[in-house]
Amino acid sequence: MTNMTSRPIGVFDSGVGGLTVLKALRAKAPSQDFIYLADAARAPYGRKPREMVREFAYGIAGFLVRLGVEGVVIACNTASAAALPELAQTLPVPVLGVIEAGVEAARRQTRTGQVGVIGTKGTIASGVYQRQLEALGFSVWARACPMFVHLVEEGLAESDEAELLAQCYLGDRPPIDTLILGCTHYPVLRRVIQRAAGDSVALVSSADAMAELVDRAWHAGRSAGHGRVVHYVTGDVASYQHTAKTIDALDGELIQLDVAALGR
Amino acid sequence: MTNMTSRPIGVFDSGVGGLTVLKALRAKAPSQDFIYLADAARAPYGRKPREMVREFAYGIAGFLVRLGVEGVVIACNTASAAALPELAQTLPVPVLGVIEAGVEAARRQTRTGQVGVIGTKGTIASGVYQRQLEALGFSVWARACPMFVHLVEEGLAESDEAELLAQCYLGDRPPIDTLILGCTHYPVLRRVIQRAAGDSVALVSSADAMAELVDRAWHAGRSAGHGRVVHYVTGDVASYQHTAKTIDALDGELIQLDVAALGR
Repeated sequence: MTNMTSRPIGVFDSGVGGLTVLKALRAKAPSQDFIYLADAARAPYGRKPREMVREFAYGIAGFLVRLGVEGVVIACNTASAAALPELAQTLPVPVLGVIEAGVEAARRQTRTGQVGVIGTKGTIASGVYQRQLEALGFSVWARACPMFVHLVEEGLAESDEAELLAQCYLGDRPPIDTLILGCTHYPVLRRVIQRAAGDSVALVSSADAMAELVDRAWHAGRSAGHGRVVHYVTGDVASYQHTAKTIDALDGELIQLDVAALGR
Repeated sequence: MTNMTSRPIGVFDSGVGGLTVLKALRAKAPSQDFIYLADAARAPYGRKPREMVREFAYGIAGFLVRLGVEGVVIACNTASAAALPELAQTLPVPVLGVIEAGVEAARRQTRTGQVGVIGTKGTIASGVYQRQLEALGFSVWARACPMFVHLVEEGLAESDEAELLAQCYLGDRPPIDTLILGCTHYPVLRRVIQRAAGDSVALVSSADAMAELVDRAWHAGRSAGHGRVVHYVTGDVASYQHTAKTIDALDGELIQLDVAALGR
């Protein structure tokens, strides 16, 4: 008898950031198989036009569907902001984005209803977090932190640069009790962000929130898979491996993929 | 009659940074033809192992030679530090690197012999600038500024982040009278670097220094070419075009190149 959840779940990001999501997903569902697609050749997405990122997301999701995935996780806030919910309406399998996961986790966390969100320029400019949080009746503070992702990829999560930039971005925040880390790289900066935001602020990680959502949606925790991961990487595989070390130890197969394979 | 300098000059960098060098070269030699290769699929080079970057440089230089270039300009400090002078000894055409150009310009600039150099982690860790400057009898101060390149690529050359990071990297400099901008992205940050370094410090740009060196080496200013540029880009051409805008207006043909074409 075929168990539905023996099929792999497809996870994609512009690069290594989504590995924080993959890590949380695997911790929650150790036997679930995953396909992780890193669109490193076109990363970073954060400052690219919305239409361009939307095209990338459609192409990648289509590729994952052709590989036979159970569902698609958009482990990239910029792509979630650009392509959901339209993508969910056109794909033949369910699609979950990190933004919905983060908003839901913040809803359960906040006591005062004063919620903050930080992310890339693209994510914050899209206003998607703000609209979803305001629809829940919350008072929202949002800020783009374009340099945070580079701190992570440079391996500077604990550094003078990180302290200075966290103060620059968070030093003048209004009184919030919950702060959504609206970029998959940010959990790596959790400690420096917590210091700059203050102890009274609860940090919500998209990665943890997504792991809970995936488990609820697809019962991934009861998967009949083998806990395997295959990484498809556009761009250079050796570079991807090198940068990935700043997030997590890589295991599983690595496959080089031509960007042309991701056409719609 | 064939004029030697009617052949194009090959210029390469890991991405858009070398466009500051190309711009200076074209200003100096408007009729010279250029081939610019941006290895965007494997960028940034700054934090990659020296051996990896050296392999990239050998592959790219070989590709440019097969296209029939007059000579090769390594418009990337990290690659110059990793691959010169060995590359110059094995290629059948002359090779010039930005480091030699910057050292020569600093030699002519300094009065006190106290010279500073800033660059990527890879460039500074290689010690190449330091050795060449110390061999001239100068007292050298060197610092890696890993976040500067990201300020440029994010379009944040004039921003609070740029001011903070420039203070962080340059605020405690010793008394120098000359500072080499040892990364091709840094001329874009000239104003914020000048403010943090102080008015008494003369900034030396690799781009301008290289343009003078190329003109001397190949009489590019008297080229019989047509002032054309062809850009070969590994990785995604649309992304390259988008990021390039932070440096310069692009003209010329754009050709997508598979990384596999750059094998040795």
